Amino acid sequence: MSDPALIALDWGTTNVRAALLDSHGAVLEERRGESGVGQFNTQQFEQQFETLTQGWPKVSAIAAGMIGSKQGWVEAPYLGVPCSTNQLSQSLVSFQNNGRDVTIVPGLKLDNGVRYDVMRGEETQLAGFLAHNKGFSGTVIMPGTHSKWVMLENEHIVDFRTYMTGEFFDAVSEHTILRHSVSDQSGPDTIFDQKVKELSGATGSIEGELFGLRARHLLEGCGEGRLRQELSALLIMAELRAGVLDGFALQKNVVVIGTDTLTVFYETALAALGHDSKRFKGTTLVWPALLNLAVKAKLIEGQAA
Amino acid sequence: MSDPALIALDWGTTNVRAALLDSHGAVLEERRGESGVGQFNTQQFEQQFETLTQGWPKVSAIAAGMIGSKQGWVEAPYLGVPCSTNQLSQSLVSFQNNGRDVTIVPGLKLDNGVRYDVMRGEETQLAGFLAHNKGFSGTVIMPGTHSKWVMLENEHIVDFRTYMTGEFFDAVSEHTILRHSVSDQSGPDTIFDQKVKELSGATGSIEGELFGLRARHLLEGCGEGRLRQELSALLIMAELRAGVLDGFALQKNVVVIGTDTLTVFYETALAALGHDSKRFKGTTLVWPALLNLAVKAKLIEGQAA
Repeated sequence: MSDPALIALDWGTTNVRAALLDSHGAVLEERRGESGVGQFNTQQFEQQFETLTQGWPKVSAIAAGMIGSKQGWVEAPYLGVPCSTNQLSQSLVSFQNNGRDVTIVPGLKLDNGVRYDVMRGEETQLAGFLAHNKGFSGTVIMPGTHSKWVMLENEHIVDFRTYMTGEFFDAVSEHTILRHSVSDQSGPDTIFDQKVKELSGATGSIEGELFGLRARHLLEGCGEGRLRQELSALLIMAELRAGVLDGFALQKNVVVIGTDTLTVFYETALAALGHDSKRFKGTTLVWPALLNLAVKAKLIEGQAA
Repeated sequence: MSDPALIALDWGTTNVRAALLDSHGAVLEERRGESGVGQFNTQQFEQQFETLTQGWPKVSAIAAGMIGSKQGWVEAPYLGVPCSTNQLSQSLVSFQNNGRDVTIVPGLKLDNGVRYDVMRGEETQLAGFLAHNKGFSGTVIMPGTHSKWVMLENEHIVDFRTYMTGEFFDAVSEHTILRHSVSDQSGPDTIFDQKVKELSGATGSIEGELFGLRARHLLEGCGEGRLRQELSALLIMAELRAGVLDGFALQKNVVVIGTDTLTVFYETALAALGHDSKRFKGTTLVWPALLNLAVKAKLIEGQAA
């Protein structure tokens, strides 16, 4: 085990993960804490950082995620796409905190006067993916509260789009009439599988199927667990249809990055449409990516991937 | 002015309207009250009916809307489509209340083992529309919390589908990240007009545009009132696209029934897609429809339309 070389932070809206890494990326220690983004002031972020890194050596720190937003610690302005990992490493925002270099990774923006989009955090997972998949061109789907679809070409992030699928699921299942029919979470995943297969051959709208869940519940009283799985299937298939309409290629080189649970759902839905995909766990990409960005930016010594 | 002949009630989920009609449909008096559907028990509904009709003569009463649901006063089981106004008039549910005939109009259901849908209240507006548009065949759009699209053929309601557009608008604008960007209601309708025109020629998805409202707000800080109008345009255009996918014809004989505000939005959106439509005010169809159903069912004497 080598000496500690870098503190890496995955600092999102609700949680922060901190890791002490050696120069090869080995995790010496990992900790978790409350994010504070949107609630803390500068002093509180400094305090939170000190608490998270207490007892760790005074090596440089690098953070990704909402911590770089206007409501975060120090703003790291969005970098426009198309851009490469190299450009990302040249746009880091560094400052001194209590005698230590702290660096924040910027988010990415799309702003061409017609379409607007932003991401924060996913760019780092993408940098991690690209470090080990040199020359990859294809579509990366990053499911979640706000699913990101990304076009990668020759190691550049050339375009991306956000679909609010996770947040729709919550809003629809908690704040519409469907709440009476989809609260039971006990439905088996096989229901999801059946429903995406059924939808893959259907020509009708997804919108027109949503109230049908409620009507079926009223008319047939069929199990709520079933209906929650069907709602999942409907919203994920709606996202896939939207991605295709928006020009994302699914014929080859489709990668799904996220949690195990979500990426399996997307892999199943893609398979129902006849598309192969590879799954990657998003969180495992972050530490290597931050180490690589730190090396590229010469914050620490080492060999960039 | 003739003698009072019928008490008509438009008894929905949140409100009830009651009217005393003469045998020609003239409104002698109109009153409003709280619905109680989902909250009242039988005795409370009886009491509410007595309060609403206090001092009115003991003529027959006929009610449409959620009052006939399981959570209403007396359940009027759904009638399956396809069906005609005549079949609707043969499926009324009558009972005695305090020495007076009370009749409830059933809702309609679609349940073919593949698709499920229900309506309650709209069937009466449709009966009112058909009474004065004999032989109409075409698509009727009834925008609202749960928009209903209805296929009419030779005076039969042959198919229908519900799109949860109004409820989506509320859920998305109040319970997702968009709430920070669309709370301002001051945007002029011209923004809506512009946006539906822009969308009418677009090939991309609607889903992919929603987060764009938030991103645009973050990146350009453009007026919130503008973004609320654009959200309206996006969701209504999504409904129109869905209706077309679901096989509803918009080339000719398109009728929009609802409030003045909503029907104008839909007329504008349909026009952007190149479709003419005629608007009807939904509430004005209800009293003539209930009178006509009462005559057809021989609850009162008269000449059915």
